[in-house]
Amino acid sequence: MKKNTKKENKPSLKIIPLGGLEQIGMNITAFESEDSIIVVDCGLAFPEDDMFGIDLVIPDTTYLEQNIDKVKGFVITHGHEDHIGALPYVLQKINVPVFATRLTMGIIENKLREHGMLETTQRKVVKFGSSVSLGCFRVEFIKTNHSIVDAAALAIYTPVGIVIHTGDFKVDYTPVFGDAIDLQRFAELGRKGVLALLCDSTNVTRPGFTPSERTVGKVIDQLFQEHKDTRIIIATFASNVDRVQQIINSAYKYGRKVVVEGRSMVNIIATASELGCLNVPDNTLISVDQLKNYPGEQTVIITTGSQGESMAALSRMAENVHRKISIGDGDTVIFSSSPIPGNEKAVASVVNKLVLKGADVIFQDVHVSGHPCQEDVKLIYTLVQPKYCIPIHGEYRHLKAQAKLARTLGYKDEDIFILQSGNVLEITPDSAEVVDDVPVGNILVDGIGVGDVGNIVLRDRQHLAEDGIVIVAFALESGTARVVSEPEITSRGFVYIKEAEEMMKGAGVVVQDALYNCAERGWTDRNHIKSVVKDKLSDFFWKKTQRRPMVLPMILEI
Amino acid sequence: MKKNTKKENKPSLKIIPLGGLEQIGMNITAFESEDSIIVVDCGLAFPEDDMFGIDLVIPDTTYLEQNIDKVKGFVITHGHEDHIGALPYVLQKINVPVFATRLTMGIIENKLREHGMLETTQRKVVKFGSSVSLGCFRVEFIKTNHSIVDAAALAIYTPVGIVIHTGDFKVDYTPVFGDAIDLQRFAELGRKGVLALLCDSTNVTRPGFTPSERTVGKVIDQLFQEHKDTRIIIATFASNVDRVQQIINSAYKYGRKVVVEGRSMVNIIATASELGCLNVPDNTLISVDQLKNYPGEQTVIITTGSQGESMAALSRMAENVHRKISIGDGDTVIFSSSPIPGNEKAVASVVNKLVLKGADVIFQDVHVSGHPCQEDVKLIYTLVQPKYCIPIHGEYRHLKAQAKLARTLGYKDEDIFILQSGNVLEITPDSAEVVDDVPVGNILVDGIGVGDVGNIVLRDRQHLAEDGIVIVAFALESGTARVVSEPEITSRGFVYIKEAEEMMKGAGVVVQDALYNCAERGWTDRNHIKSVVKDKLSDFFWKKTQRRPMVLPMILEI
Repeated sequence: MKKNTKKENKPSLKIIPLGGLEQIGMNITAFESEDSIIVVDCGLAFPEDDMFGIDLVIPDTTYLEQNIDKVKGFVITHGHEDHIGALPYVLQKINVPVFATRLTMGIIENKLREHGMLETTQRKVVKFGSSVSLGCFRVEFIKTNHSIVDAAALAIYTPVGIVIHTGDFKVDYTPVFGDAIDLQRFAELGRKGVLALLCDSTNVTRPGFTPSERTVGKVIDQLFQEHKDTRIIIATFASNVDRVQQIINSAYKYGRKVVVEGRSMVNIIATASELGCLNVPDNTLISVDQLKNYPGEQTVIITTGSQGESMAALSRMAENVHRKISIGDGDTVIFSSSPIPGNEKAVASVVNKLVLKGADVIFQDVHVSGHPCQEDVKLIYTLVQPKYCIPIHGEYRHLKAQAKLARTLGYKDEDIFILQSGNVLEITPDSAEVVDDVPVGNILVDGIGVGDVGNIVLRDRQHLAEDGIVIVAFALESGTARVVSEPEITSRGFVYIKEAEEMMKGAGVVVQDALYNCAERGWTDRNHIKSVVKDKLSDFFWKKTQRRPMVLPMILEI
Repeated sequence: MKKNTKKENKPSLKIIPLGGLEQIGMNITAFESEDSIIVVDCGLAFPEDDMFGIDLVIPDTTYLEQNIDKVKGFVITHGHEDHIGALPYVLQKINVPVFATRLTMGIIENKLREHGMLETTQRKVVKFGSSVSLGCFRVEFIKTNHSIVDAAALAIYTPVGIVIHTGDFKVDYTPVFGDAIDLQRFAELGRKGVLALLCDSTNVTRPGFTPSERTVGKVIDQLFQEHKDTRIIIATFASNVDRVQQIINSAYKYGRKVVVEGRSMVNIIATASELGCLNVPDNTLISVDQLKNYPGEQTVIITTGSQGESMAALSRMAENVHRKISIGDGDTVIFSSSPIPGNEKAVASVVNKLVLKGADVIFQDVHVSGHPCQEDVKLIYTLVQPKYCIPIHGEYRHLKAQAKLARTLGYKDEDIFILQSGNVLEITPDSAEVVDDVPVGNILVDGIGVGDVGNIVLRDRQHLAEDGIVIVAFALESGTARVVSEPEITSRGFVYIKEAEEMMKGAGVVVQDALYNCAERGWTDRNHIKSVVKDKLSDFFWKKTQRRPMVLPMILEI
């Protein structure tokens, strides 16, 4: 009894990642103490290759829904899709206030507007250095640098101690817009004593330091210098406002007009300009329709499509289906980006098409990462000196690599926690351990359907993709096994029917034999008849083709 | 008239690439002069991501079939799948002799044996430095280096002059097995005068030289030195016999027994050993069943699966479904390979699974390429000094990059030919130009079907994969539009039916309305009725889900 009482009095903090730890994407982490839960980020993931037809993936938030009365708000670190993309879906179930810095909120608001949710969502912009109180928590926003402006780390003041969540960050001593990461604040908090550090693992397998965004500016400037006689088209990430700023700077310097192409880029640039995060000299931006009024060497087109996305502006230019811009001899196309793993072939394919059109394509060394390399991570650890280390934002190999790095800094295994999504890490003043698991998972969004495509549907899509489908329909006299029509057989995605007439005739005979057999034996159970027909046909097709199309019998009752 | 006569007397050579120029893969090039055609290589390509269900891709050889009387033989440069993989298919239509060096022929013979074609195929092993006469051609095999032993360049003596085809090659001054590339012979032929050079473009966007295979041996030895206390598992390309040799050398040096895992690797190593291309010290190889008799630190497992291929041995180990080998704490897994573009995510996924099992995974800097970098290509050009330059083996951007490189060496645009598959480049003593095009294309192999899956089937598979299928079957009275059964509706890969009962009921009503309408208007044409039902249902589902499943109406006649 005494022990129990003691435990109740001891403050406790639960850290519950609901996504983001098996993959890069879908970042969302709950912090729970007493009667309060706050949620850091609410991101989406892009579908894996085997998630056929899926548009995007959002986290399972059952745990939050079950504890909805405790949830005080979403605290967002920055405006990338893997940190904000699931908000419009999750807010429909858990409508609590959203807290973010200025540009981050601007991007969130664009998103909410598209979903018609702007009026129904409480939002509060938070300044760097200030904090918000949410139940028993206080959350302070700390300036960091990243490949998007206005990224924040969070200092979360909990009943057990201070937890620092870095968000995605890099250490940039010479950022393009705004201040360098607030290393002094990290140090100050470290001096006070930090309970746990949740730190970005994305680049932790890379040695050294991540270079400043400004180094890319120099490369871009050099490329403008070298290609004075051609039109320049630069593809980059829509959200990288600093990159766009540097391109605009070079354009202005070399007397070029700037066109911005691609819906997502136009949106973010508009938002960033409104908020003063982007400084565009007068008379520099022109519309795509004005392009024709200027010689190519006096223009630059900043565009989406740096990942080879088939619907993005650059891909449409490469495919000759862009309505306003066509690529030709004398164009210089610069990829100011690296392919995200999985996109390499799509990018190569776009490059080939551009080269085929006569463009000079530059796709190396015009990019730096927005994530910390090993020495940057060591710097943050050394400033913060947390009691517990919790690597986040990475695949298992990245988390493990950060753990290894922490050990080189003197941390012991028992103070490093490689969590899996769903783990409940409970920290008290004198202990830290995984005490429980909550439900987590991928919810698939397809069209306007959220969660209506599950494993069965996906498995069917994979089967259909692999070998196609054969449908056999026949009519039976109601209640008997008497066949009252010729069976109709058709297929899709299996063989080209016109060239396989012989085989399809053979299949018809197989079905008739099977039905005859069923009738002879007096089998009238519809499921049983279907299963006999299905097995016979599957065998027949396997022997003929060594393929396993889905076989679907359908019975009409007459 | 005079001009014509003159033309007939002038010797002419046609170079006709039938594949390999829009992609890396499916290399096959015909050389035609007078009454003779020879074919260099006969490779396959692996299916692109959107070729659902396809096992492999082979070239369309219609042109060779149409000129079968001229075809004298296949001359093979080396034993990689993209150079030999289509032989078993193409030889069935064009049964002419095959010429290759020793190991290359050994690998071809394994393949022919699997297809039961060993007895029916004429084969001749050719030594380096010797040549074979084929019609009006003579073909000399020249020693090169590559990521497979026994690779050859070809000097093709034609009525117009000497053409050099490099095959895939690298310049390795210190190869692991056999001699360095025969640079003297390249120089000698260059002195004589070379009409055209067909040169490997794979790595031509990379500056510098490709390092020797031996540099990898040093890294491997170092890793053995550093991991004396753990079992070592090394994944590499099955066909890289030199790599396997170097791993065996280190294993022997450090007193480890060697297990070889993965069918393709076991086959190639057996063939290479038989032919003396691999030198395995006695008592070094053990079977996988003997593994348990040795402590982990006294064994090394060489395995397939370095590309994350889901069925390969390493992936099965990572997935815990390998019958004999399981990965655990204290295993060191080395990827002695680079991911081929497109395989990055699969490789990362295997790495994550291995790390999760506790293995220490090393996947950087234990590989060198088998293709020439820029300086190597310049070396060959400078030795050979061809009249015409024909970049081969690459995507368009690679071919273009080699052309650019040739220009830096002083070649003029009119002497550089960036061909597309199907182009007929005709060379005479005083001219070279693309004069014609022959049919080329991808023939898809799926199961035992060759070419029976075409664009229509593939498009259907893509559609099915994306949004699934809805089938609606109903019975009509023969010759009329009278409906004699309830329509049956079912779907696969669209929505989970049990959770979409309501919608499916609505769909039933839509079908019944459509059929009622058709009957009212006296429409009895079956195709017309189907198309009405299909359109109505498609609209209905789009409104409900914003998806476009394939809708397939089937009519039974009663």
